Amino acid sequence: MQPENSIVFEIFKGVSFSPHQIDLIENQIEKITLKKGDTLLKVQEIVHFQYYVNEGCLRTYFIDQAGKEHTLQFAIKDWWISDYTAFFSSTPAIMNIECIQDAILYRISKASMESLFAEIPQLETFFRKKMEGAFASFQKRILASLAQPAKERYSAFIKSYPDIEQNVKNYHIASYLGITTESLSRIRKESHAK
Amino acid sequence: MQPENSIVFEIFKGVSFSPHQIDLIENQIEKITLKKGDTLLKVQEIVHFQYYVNEGCLRTYFIDQAGKEHTLQFAIKDWWISDYTAFFSSTPAIMNIECIQDAILYRISKASMESLFAEIPQLETFFRKKMEGAFASFQKRILASLAQPAKERYSAFIKSYPDIEQNVKNYHIASYLGITTESLSRIRKESHAK
Repeated sequence: MQPENSIVFEIFKGVSFSPHQIDLIENQIEKITLKKGDTLLKVQEIVHFQYYVNEGCLRTYFIDQAGKEHTLQFAIKDWWISDYTAFFSSTPAIMNIECIQDAILYRISKASMESLFAEIPQLETFFRKKMEGAFASFQKRILASLAQPAKERYSAFIKSYPDIEQNVKNYHIASYLGITTESLSRIRKESHAK
Repeated sequence: MQPENSIVFEIFKGVSFSPHQIDLIENQIEKITLKKGDTLLKVQEIVHFQYYVNEGCLRTYFIDQAGKEHTLQFAIKDWWISDYTAFFSSTPAIMNIECIQDAILYRISKASMESLFAEIPQLETFFRKKMEGAFASFQKRILASLAQPAKERYSAFIKSYPDIEQNVKNYHIASYLGITTESLSRIRKESHAK
């Protein structure tokens, strides 16, 4: 592959690398294809990787003691996904990740990341900034769950994931917003009536 | 101050620095003392700093459209606090931070951080790991708010902030858990009855 066409530039958009650094990174990332319905990660598994979504859509969910599903995150093109609690602390997964639309992913292990950071400081900067953005968006989401009515949380969701509604099931969205599918339908009708 | 006694070692525990690096960092951090009731940050202010808590306790809160307060975070010794959404994106604060127990803080600006990272890579690693831990704990908290009954969220809160109950008001804790003060009293009675 010509260095300038390397997937590395797509994954780490905006970062400059030398040809040698591109080689190093390419040796540590691995392409994965998934079909709709495939499971990427199951509760209790040890989490070695985080995943860059190049195409498709995935969903992170959690099943509570009563057997009810809760969607924590959707990941679409250009997002990273993993059970980060488990990934960062090297503990078993507390969440499941499933593919909800045929997907192409690139995975990188925690060990690879740490060794690449030592060689390529701008990669560590990239991930630090990614984490900052993700942290800020989680902070906003916690605020929203404490303070915003479901209708506003639905609007914010549509802004974050503009094309997602065609691809995911209603109960996924409802469980992401922490509401019933009936409430979701009502909110949608009210939004469209405006 | 003797380098080995520098506050830098307390703030960035576990990181090795050369005497020159300690100087660089000391020049960029600033000590602040606050009295109980003082405001550290107000909604709409531009957020230039994050703060390391050396002593005392602070609270980040948000006031919704109906005028109701929601506590997002408490920070005790060894925690970092800011309106991170605003700090990372250089936008006006969406939260307030108040001192709820006399405090000694050390602040560092975003600009100082970026310039120090260029000189001291291990400082960037420190903050990347901090962000990872904070991100994982927020991920857990979102899961909890979606899936756990208030009683379990209260137990998790007591574990995260073991000594906090003596220092903060009941309505702070209730608004952190997203419940009423009446529910909090009931949960406490039930917990202590066991």
